[in-house]
Amino acid sequence: MPDTARRAEEPAGARYGNRPTMKDVAARAGVGLKTVSRVVNGEPGVTPETERRVQEAIEALGFRRNDSARVLRKGRTSSIGLVLEDLADPFYGPLSRAVEEVARAHGTLLFNGSSAEDPEREQELALALCARRVDGLVVIPAGDDHRYLEPEIKAGVATVFVDRPPGRIEADVVLSDNYGGARSGVAHLIAHGHRRIGFIGDMPRIHTAAERLRGYRAAMEDAGIPVAESWMSLGATDPERVRRAAEEMLSGPHPVTAIFTGNNRVTVTVIRVLAEHPRRVALVGFDDLELADLLKPGVTVVAQDAAALGRTAAERLFRRLDGSPPAPERIELPTRLITRGSGELPPAD
Amino acid sequence: MPDTARRAEEPAGARYGNRPTMKDVAARAGVGLKTVSRVVNGEPGVTPETERRVQEAIEALGFRRNDSARVLRKGRTSSIGLVLEDLADPFYGPLSRAVEEVARAHGTLLFNGSSAEDPEREQELALALCARRVDGLVVIPAGDDHRYLEPEIKAGVATVFVDRPPGRIEADVVLSDNYGGARSGVAHLIAHGHRRIGFIGDMPRIHTAAERLRGYRAAMEDAGIPVAESWMSLGATDPERVRRAAEEMLSGPHPVTAIFTGNNRVTVTVIRVLAEHPRRVALVGFDDLELADLLKPGVTVVAQDAAALGRTAAERLFRRLDGSPPAPERIELPTRLITRGSGELPPAD
Repeated sequence: MPDTARRAEEPAGARYGNRPTMKDVAARAGVGLKTVSRVVNGEPGVTPETERRVQEAIEALGFRRNDSARVLRKGRTSSIGLVLEDLADPFYGPLSRAVEEVARAHGTLLFNGSSAEDPEREQELALALCARRVDGLVVIPAGDDHRYLEPEIKAGVATVFVDRPPGRIEADVVLSDNYGGARSGVAHLIAHGHRRIGFIGDMPRIHTAAERLRGYRAAMEDAGIPVAESWMSLGATDPERVRRAAEEMLSGPHPVTAIFTGNNRVTVTVIRVLAEHPRRVALVGFDDLELADLLKPGVTVVAQDAAALGRTAAERLFRRLDGSPPAPERIELPTRLITRGSGELPPAD
Repeated sequence: MPDTARRAEEPAGARYGNRPTMKDVAARAGVGLKTVSRVVNGEPGVTPETERRVQEAIEALGFRRNDSARVLRKGRTSSIGLVLEDLADPFYGPLSRAVEEVARAHGTLLFNGSSAEDPEREQELALALCARRVDGLVVIPAGDDHRYLEPEIKAGVATVFVDRPPGRIEADVVLSDNYGGARSGVAHLIAHGHRRIGFIGDMPRIHTAAERLRGYRAAMEDAGIPVAESWMSLGATDPERVRRAAEEMLSGPHPVTAIFTGNNRVTVTVIRVLAEHPRRVALVGFDDLELADLLKPGVTVVAQDAAALGRTAAERLFRRLDGSPPAPERIELPTRLITRGSGELPPAD
């Protein structure tokens, strides 16, 4: 049996017990514990010859410094937590990666977890990360009351919210211009002759969904178009719910001639519904999609810069950690209308 | 100024220093330290009235247990590390989420980071996680020599590789059937009349790229088709390189009539090239894509189950942690051919 296989099969009880310690290194190198500590921590006062002996012992024993012990001594863990809504949502991929890149540049590791849009799970995860003594938190909130984080923020956990603002506490937040982006997307449909425009969005308690609906309403009001209740549908973004909502708006004697979709999950389903629909219906979606330009017609979108959201939030967090914490601020990033065909279709009737 | 804002502006020097301690709780509740410890750790021997007083003091002071200290005492950190290739690649989204779900079911937090296909960065990240005393690692390797992990595995860090096998050590690995999947995808193109079939894949040192090329070669050999060197192109998956490779295969007196793409990044670019190409060219891609069914023609793919890869790897890891570690094993998950149109096009000439 190969050596490694035997090792891997050692009973679980052996865990950690057989890690070589500084004492083992000191014994093998024939030096004192303090000397090993000096070498490991790069402190002066060791001759090159002694350092070589200690390094050889470290190598031979496979000794590794235990950062958890350092953490307790130094107070900083060089780790931060990122609380996402859903690790599998493609919108959060570039955001996570941007946070990771900034963390890496600061020699910091990243904890990652998702709330699955459940406020209790968000709180459980955020507090578990605080109990692990992360230096900071980047949070995409699922809930609307973050007073549970006050003792942590008071104790020094740098906290930045992103994508959605915190509830009932003051803290940094980095947002896209959800209101302005939706308003410009809907105005674009109006400019192409549409008046009966539907809006399908996420659950109304989610900040981004509410803001985008507000942008829709503002654009309609700007154009003097009264909005029918049946044109607006907010709820979960599962395909069944979204499909039903779209089909309802598209049926009856006065169907909508265009739809504005409130996020990437909604857009994907509405594209499918429209592909099967007999009439031509215009579409503008919030969030870009990877193959949106290759569909026929290409999908016109209001794009957010997910990487910029993550980068800005992480930089803000490290600015807070690096010395002079600024007063809590709300930072809003612009969105961009990308025209590709679906949003420029005229009304079918 | 609101209370929270003032707190957030406290100087960085105050970090951790002002966290309430068990001693503070004991003083406020008028009980001994041991009593507070019993309440915090849910141990017996405290009257309901005393427990109430302690809980009130905990609440009033905002006291939270410090898990780092527990970690040092207990040897387990209830955290695992996930070393990905790229946090932003949509393939890793469902994989990460599946690992997170299994970890969550075991009350374990997840560290996440990416190697960006750099073996040194993989090692740096994996060892940083070990220094943080994670209980286990799920690794998508970028490098081909993992002997650097031997001391960690020996010391008890449960380690499972996923998507690609480890190099020069024995350890659990969960893979897709890359060889069989590619072979069936190329055989599908041959069955639709193609003989001049191109293969565009990732860098040859990446296991999955090499295995899929092997599957391509096997399918061609099965059909008795000699393969021209100019039909195979392996390298980085950036759009410029892939575009050049595709355009070369599609030009000259004997262009390929079909292309097999080695992963989702390659497929996305080849779809763009074919959309602009004057002749009809068949395409089968490895990995599914979100809107692949809505393109015209729909994109035929060999789909992997990314969530199953993550789930299987994480379950294996916790089986290893939960007592009787099994002998290292290689687990291979099947792929699935999904026909949508692009792979069923006959040759243009």
